[in-house]
Amino acid sequence: MKVLLLFAHPEARSLNGALRDVAVAELRRQGHEVQVSDLYAQGWKAAIDRADFPGLAANERLVPAAASKAAFEVGDLTQDVQEEIDKLRWADVLILQFPLWWFSMPAILKGWVDRVYACGFAYGVGEHSDKRWGDRYGEGNLAGKRAMLIVTTGGWEPHYGARGVNGPIGDLLFPIHHGILFYPGYDVLPPFVVYQTGRLDEAGFEATAEQLRERMRTLATTPPIPYRRQNGGDYLIPSMELRPGLGAPSRTGFALHLRDEDAGSSR
Amino acid sequence: MKVLLLFAHPEARSLNGALRDVAVAELRRQGHEVQVSDLYAQGWKAAIDRADFPGLAANERLVPAAASKAAFEVGDLTQDVQEEIDKLRWADVLILQFPLWWFSMPAILKGWVDRVYACGFAYGVGEHSDKRWGDRYGEGNLAGKRAMLIVTTGGWEPHYGARGVNGPIGDLLFPIHHGILFYPGYDVLPPFVVYQTGRLDEAGFEATAEQLRERMRTLATTPPIPYRRQNGGDYLIPSMELRPGLGAPSRTGFALHLRDEDAGSSR
Repeated sequence: MKVLLLFAHPEARSLNGALRDVAVAELRRQGHEVQVSDLYAQGWKAAIDRADFPGLAANERLVPAAASKAAFEVGDLTQDVQEEIDKLRWADVLILQFPLWWFSMPAILKGWVDRVYACGFAYGVGEHSDKRWGDRYGEGNLAGKRAMLIVTTGGWEPHYGARGVNGPIGDLLFPIHHGILFYPGYDVLPPFVVYQTGRLDEAGFEATAEQLRERMRTLATTPPIPYRRQNGGDYLIPSMELRPGLGAPSRTGFALHLRDEDAGSSR
Repeated sequence: MKVLLLFAHPEARSLNGALRDVAVAELRRQGHEVQVSDLYAQGWKAAIDRADFPGLAANERLVPAAASKAAFEVGDLTQDVQEEIDKLRWADVLILQFPLWWFSMPAILKGWVDRVYACGFAYGVGEHSDKRWGDRYGEGNLAGKRAMLIVTTGGWEPHYGARGVNGPIGDLLFPIHHGILFYPGYDVLPPFVVYQTGRLDEAGFEATAEQLRERMRTLATTPPIPYRRQNGGDYLIPSMELRPGLGAPSRTGFALHLRDEDAGSSR
């Protein structure tokens, strides 16, 4: 398979840097082709702004989605964005690796999403009718590919548990898993999360590295998070609400968007 | 009161720009002092990196939390970050205004959080003991102040409802409300959310503007989202899990972190 790993940590000599090297080495050992987008090393521009749309007239009002759609259609995106889109089309598997900062991704990685997810490519795709609400949530230009997160946090695992003060990790990651990865079509694998990074000694690192290697060896076979497809009949159109009767009564919030046959958390 | 409004849209001639002007005018009409941090206009640097820590030796490994703590303690933060911290100390109310991009804030605003929330200021505060796990989640340097979001989205309101395909808006915003605002001490007011921005006509804008003015008039009196204080006795230490018996059986996920006397959603 072809694997694209997005790396979003400012220090190569970090736990994240070491885990990236572990993942890439194991993937290559398995015979996969690997590309790494090291956002800090690339000097990635995080904020989407007028400079993203060279075709926009000087006095024209910037409407980001409209400008993105126009630039995507005529192939007028900036070169850095176009290169990342080409990598996404090339890759069978996308891995986003980042430290969890303020319960989400670092700004530089969010800026990769904001800029690379062009209108007409990652959203604004497909027809709207009484049977479909565009190609999204399980359909779209990235359907048939797989994605997963590698995330590190200084916090303790129980703090991110079902009753932990931070909120459950699966729910905290839902806006990324479901909203950023499932949306343009990816099958999303359960995340690889490393907790209490400040206390990881050499033995702990070795155990973590081996777990990560195992996840790299099972990329093709790990069952994805069983999100419901938007256009599979489970949602009313145009309200896009889950049909009455679907979703176990005990389920609320994000967990409603898991298929009924799959019990458990929203991870 | 003193109000700081953080504005994170690249175009002044946008719906967001118009709503910002409405909010600021109403706040001034009420006699409040207002400062606006217009992140795009300020050319805000989004990605935290070595340049944030001039005191770091050239060959020293960058550990962001440690570098931030060291710089904060000796007053060696960069001037742009220090100015924002001064504004946060000055303000009684913080408003974050942004378009919802990929179910979260734009990268430039996430980069404001990543950089301005210094260690020792917004986190890493207070003592750890068998009675306290630091000053966070309702305590900390920003306790006693209020915060709220003004958010716009092209999506329809039912798509963000209790059973909507995007997930409930209150849950999608939980990582910001609870993880970014409640964490360093803010009382968090319910968000002001504008849906279907692409279809807002003149009458719709006027109605929205009037609702926003009303929210600006009631900043001091609107009840905050009733999150549980971490050190108020509801959580076990050190696992930081909600004590057995707390949280109605029907509640799961983020909603567990609302006080039991307050029924309803996690908004």
